[in-house]
Amino acid sequence: MPGNSFGHTFRLTTFGESHGPALGGVIDGCPAGIDINLEFVQKELSRRRPGQSKIVTQRKEDDEVEFLSGIFEGKTTGAPIGFTILNKDQKSKDYDHLKDVFRPSHGDYTYQAKYGHRDYRGGGRYSARETVSRVVGGAIAKLLIAKEKIKIYGYVTQVGNIKLDKCHMDMDLSTIDDTPIRCPDKEIAEKMIARIEEVRKAGDTIGGVVTGIITGMPVGLGEPVFDKLNADLAKAMMSIPAAKGFDCGWGFEGLGMLGSEFNDEFYNDKGNIRTKTNYSGGVQAGISNGEDIYFQVVFKPVSTIMKKQMTVNSKGEEVEVAGKGRHDPCVLPRAVPIVEAMAALVIADHLLRNQV
Amino acid sequence: MPGNSFGHTFRLTTFGESHGPALGGVIDGCPAGIDINLEFVQKELSRRRPGQSKIVTQRKEDDEVEFLSGIFEGKTTGAPIGFTILNKDQKSKDYDHLKDVFRPSHGDYTYQAKYGHRDYRGGGRYSARETVSRVVGGAIAKLLIAKEKIKIYGYVTQVGNIKLDKCHMDMDLSTIDDTPIRCPDKEIAEKMIARIEEVRKAGDTIGGVVTGIITGMPVGLGEPVFDKLNADLAKAMMSIPAAKGFDCGWGFEGLGMLGSEFNDEFYNDKGNIRTKTNYSGGVQAGISNGEDIYFQVVFKPVSTIMKKQMTVNSKGEEVEVAGKGRHDPCVLPRAVPIVEAMAALVIADHLLRNQV
Amino acid sequence: MPGNSFGHTFRLTTFGESHGPALGGVIDGCPAGIDINLEFVQKELSRRRPGQSKIVTQRKEDDEVEFLSGIFEGKTTGAPIGFTILNKDQKSKDYDHLKDVFRPSHGDYTYQAKYGHRDYRGGGRYSARETVSRVVGGAIAKLLIAKEKIKIYGYVTQVGNIKLDKCHMDMDLSTIDDTPIRCPDKEIAEKMIARIEEVRKAGDTIGGVVTGIITGMPVGLGEPVFDKLNADLAKAMMSIPAAKGFDCGWGFEGLGMLGSEFNDEFYNDKGNIRTKTNYSGGVQAGISNGEDIYFQVVFKPVSTIMKKQMTVNSKGEEVEVAGKGRHDPCVLPRAVPIVEAMAALVIADHLLRNQV
Amino acid sequence: MPGNSFGHTFRLTTFGESHGPALGGVIDGCPAGIDINLEFVQKELSRRRPGQSKIVTQRKEDDEVEFLSGIFEGKTTGAPIGFTILNKDQKSKDYDHLKDVFRPSHGDYTYQAKYGHRDYRGGGRYSARETVSRVVGGAIAKLLIAKEKIKIYGYVTQVGNIKLDKCHMDMDLSTIDDTPIRCPDKEIAEKMIARIEEVRKAGDTIGGVVTGIITGMPVGLGEPVFDKLNADLAKAMMSIPAAKGFDCGWGFEGLGMLGSEFNDEFYNDKGNIRTKTNYSGGVQAGISNGEDIYFQVVFKPVSTIMKKQMTVNSKGEEVEVAGKGRHDPCVLPRAVPIVEAMAALVIADHLLRNQV
Repeated sequence: MPGNSFGHTFRLTTFGESHGPALGGVIDGCPAGIDINLEFVQKELSRRRPGQSKIVTQRKEDDEVEFLSGIFEGKTTGAPIGFTILNKDQKSKDYDHLKDVFRPSHGDYTYQAKYGHRDYRGGGRYSARETVSRVVGGAIAKLLIAKEKIKIYGYVTQVGNIKLDKCHMDMDLSTIDDTPIRCPDKEIAEKMIARIEEVRKAGDTIGGVVTGIITGMPVGLGEPVFDKLNADLAKAMMSIPAAKGFDCGWGFEGLGMLGSEFNDEFYNDKGNIRTKTNYSGGVQAGISNGEDIYFQVVFKPVSTIMKKQMTVNSKGEEVEVAGKGRHDPCVLPRAVPIVEAMAALVIADHLLRNQV
Repeated sequence: MPGNSFGHTFRLTTFGESHGPALGGVIDGCPAGIDINLEFVQKELSRRRPGQSKIVTQRKEDDEVEFLSGIFEGKTTGAPIGFTILNKDQKSKDYDHLKDVFRPSHGDYTYQAKYGHRDYRGGGRYSARETVSRVVGGAIAKLLIAKEKIKIYGYVTQVGNIKLDKCHMDMDLSTIDDTPIRCPDKEIAEKMIARIEEVRKAGDTIGGVVTGIITGMPVGLGEPVFDKLNADLAKAMMSIPAAKGFDCGWGFEGLGMLGSEFNDEFYNDKGNIRTKTNYSGGVQAGISNGEDIYFQVVFKPVSTIMKKQMTVNSKGEEVEVAGKGRHDPCVLPRAVPIVEAMAALVIADHLLRNQV
Repeated sequence: MPGNSFGHTFRLTTFGESHGPALGGVIDGCPAGIDINLEFVQKELSRRRPGQSKIVTQRKEDDEVEFLSGIFEGKTTGAPIGFTILNKDQKSKDYDHLKDVFRPSHGDYTYQAKYGHRDYRGGGRYSARETVSRVVGGAIAKLLIAKEKIKIYGYVTQVGNIKLDKCHMDMDLSTIDDTPIRCPDKEIAEKMIARIEEVRKAGDTIGGVVTGIITGMPVGLGEPVFDKLNADLAKAMMSIPAAKGFDCGWGFEGLGMLGSEFNDEFYNDKGNIRTKTNYSGGVQAGISNGEDIYFQVVFKPVSTIMKKQMTVNSKGEEVEVAGKGRHDPCVLPRAVPIVEAMAALVIADHLLRNQV
Repeated sequence: MPGNSFGHTFRLTTFGESHGPALGGVIDGCPAGIDINLEFVQKELSRRRPGQSKIVTQRKEDDEVEFLSGIFEGKTTGAPIGFTILNKDQKSKDYDHLKDVFRPSHGDYTYQAKYGHRDYRGGGRYSARETVSRVVGGAIAKLLIAKEKIKIYGYVTQVGNIKLDKCHMDMDLSTIDDTPIRCPDKEIAEKMIARIEEVRKAGDTIGGVVTGIITGMPVGLGEPVFDKLNADLAKAMMSIPAAKGFDCGWGFEGLGMLGSEFNDEFYNDKGNIRTKTNYSGGVQAGISNGEDIYFQVVFKPVSTIMKKQMTVNSKGEEVEVAGKGRHDPCVLPRAVPIVEAMAALVIADHLLRNQV
């Protein structure tokens, strides 16, 4: 049953496999009259690209998006926006050795069991390459919500046990892209990079946390009781490949707090109702209260490692498997634009839903 | 825009306010021929009831569900199952003092801002009382998935900083309801209860973690790329009032691990493909792999406390507010059946989706 | 799979069987702040009631709707509106003779084949009694769209071969309910009634046409390319029990016309763009153009007749079947409020969709 | 709000404008393992192509579909099937004269009013060219349902007042494409063609009826109460550009019949429950009963005519407008594959829904 659409009013439907002719999607529900800055969209796509630095995978993906519809004379028309990203380099033969092997913690086994017939080349549909379509959809969503002064930031706050312990308000978020790890604190960034290098040399991989920030939020986004804003953010983030955990506001870290500490008291800020603290993370009873939204997404280590592992093949025989070529020691910097894209999709959807 | 439905093929739509005539819902998509054990459904509802022990709220809710359709001669007919739970005790006047006050960390302010007109009595639609309908829906879902030998368990693993550190396989999950805190380890349970008592006497509240376990999983549930099984679980859990965080498999706790440690190697278990470890939490690439699913849900402390807090009213004036009567120091034991219900709804939905 | 919901933004979900405890539904997505005139809703329900005159079925259904949520101090709150209509008179035994017989052109056979287990009493879920919930949903929709000055009328334009050939603009639509057949032309109405009487005495039934009119339409309702306004009206009408055909604008009757005759030329009516003719029926390219919408719905004769018919039972044996007691010779006058309700649901849904 | 998707379990989402770079779509929910005969899909597309004979428009559209995903080694994988059809010949300048003119009975005015900004070239999104994507989706649907021996036929039964009055069972439906008008009765076909020629020479256009036939139907497709099979067929057909009316079974033509004549008596046909007559058109209470489904779709005359018409422009000024170049006197033969495609989409969707 279909699972390749996200959103109700601003809806992205995606398609495409790692080694097929192209990936792409359809953005349906984008209002007419939005200026589409194609350079911005392309830049977002480039932020996701592998091969940007030593610490990420070296596969070259000079992805270029082509818009096929829904934009006329630089503006959206309200018609669905179709787009494609060609796969420039599809060498199927490279993957023949994976045809019958179920790599540990990949989708090889579950896809084979569910579908019977699958495109095994490079992970096919379950390759993280599918996220290019998310980034394009998210870029359009960002342009839409920018009209309401809503901005979205993602950055890396943890690599293994190396953790950034600063509030987003105490950092300059415009510098996120300045370090290859996308951490706005340069000192911590260096430690993170050093750790990743260490892991990479060992042929291993490491996970961590991406933090998302949404500023400029209007009051009232989110639909009770099931489509709460934080619930939809949770789904959005947990749908990203390798995501394992999510919290919004003070979640796992607030576990020791009492109600009297956790509650956010309201005050009157020159006519605006604000909260003194923001443990709620900008969402109360599922609806935005105008404060900044912040959330964390845990990513597991990339499953493809250079070390040998035992597994089974499709005949049930035990076999040994190991990654080939260069590998991606840490998905986090590339996950940043994807986290941002998914957040933008959620906010765009709820912005439109709230107009009804 | 509508947000009161959950699920695609097995879909629950709920309605009702804390102090209206009744709450209820419609379960649409339940296949015909499922035996409905009414006692079981009623018992599930009773597990959610307040007033079961000192450590939970004393408001009496002897909730009784009445089924209005969709069941004939003890079996489902495939027609939608309508049901209601009457609010037996609706004293509107008790809540007049809350008409214009925005209690800290409640939905008073966000609902007022979003809707302009709201039923403020006891929280109205944003009262946790709405979860009675989820529990009824979840009970029907449990009966459906029981046919496939799938079972769902919830229990409390953390209260404040008191934490249960045992794997679910090392405990007897049939004893969950034996302690009022619903923790299957009696020693830890006692510590948790003592802590809650302490907090209750101080007029304060405390949060923690509910762990969910799904056993007997078939391989293949979950729909890529957005409707991954773990993504839908995340949304389900984060839609529960007071939920702040979620992880599935080894999430926040696995942050220090490397890929070579985290990956679950496959082996052949007498013809069944199994994993030696289960850091993935039973889901790989969004699809169940047949191993047990386990996940954690973080709940913040209940917002209603007996201590005085500052806030503002609808005129923007600063006012003092404090809880009245008896309060609920810890939502966790009552959250257990709700977590189970939401998990059952997700699994029922994906079980049916996987048949297509 | 669920099929008991209608609409995307203004969504009605219904439940209930002919002889179960109650029917009802949930209206989700109704904006906050709509004044709910309960008398109006009840009056709409009464218009649907059988037993209003000789020419309709005599089963007494003094239906009363009870609203359970979503309305506070006379206004909607934006929360889902749950409602029930009790079945006051449920004599199951009356229907034992139908347990195993598949009545011609009823749903007995298809439901039995599809579901295996069904509530056979009085047709259960496939009884036209389910339409009470549509009428309640439609009444709320009417109140919503009335704020935009949109009005909906239904009336009978054909009974068998007796046909009313007047444009709706040449009649006084406020007189529709003045005749028991709900035809605003008294002369034709008398002929229709006489024909129905004739048919009734013969123990037979007769069908015909209900015409729907929507006035006060804004420009812009309808969503291309699949959710065209006329496409959604078609689905709405064809979902009514016994509906067999639909056209919108000049459909079946315009079959001899050429493009030069059929095209509606635009003109400038004091600043408003209007069409000189309205063969399009108020919809062009699936979107309302501001002109009145008119459409026709064909209803077949009621399937329950007093005459003996041959059929088979669940064992495949040939058996004779005939209606018992009083029967309903013509569904048309009772279909009028249902047609209006469904049209109101479509317009309410698209009104809200167009705000996005 | 999105309106460019059709279907719930087998879902087609389309995009594309008449003069943009490409049209296309995504088919989501197609099960894995279906053999995709690319020649068949291409042939279906060619059946829709203009320029096949004198009686249809001469615009050359040698449409070629390119599949981008979801098919691997000739079979579907269960992943979404993305596809594009390039617009080979996009001369924007040809349409500058239509930039500000609202052609009678086209979507120029309603789109401009709804969206403010539109691609006016050749009708943009409201050009009938969007139906190429429907035909591709329908072709895949046909391949899916062919596994269940379900077949779909469309043919022209009326052009203006020239009508074919034969039951589909008395004709050889394999000869439909033998005449350019796609009417399986050669004598009537000739009359139709002569009439269209006459109309064409006068610079005018003419409408008529396409009949759809579905054979090999299993019992049980259709979901009560709103998603009845005939209701979904109605929506599907009425969403086709220029469709004005629909009936299923004996609709408009059965208006004089009594219940005793209209009811379809059941009989036992060697163990199969069948009906002696089939006035119901294969659907009872919204669910297929195994008999052939037949339905009619009324199409209005094409709006673009060579004759001069009065209209207004975007400034509200009265202007004269007339078609240029060659025109399409009758959409019916090209509508046949579109009617078939939409029927296939409905049946595929309900086939999958019925598996749940």
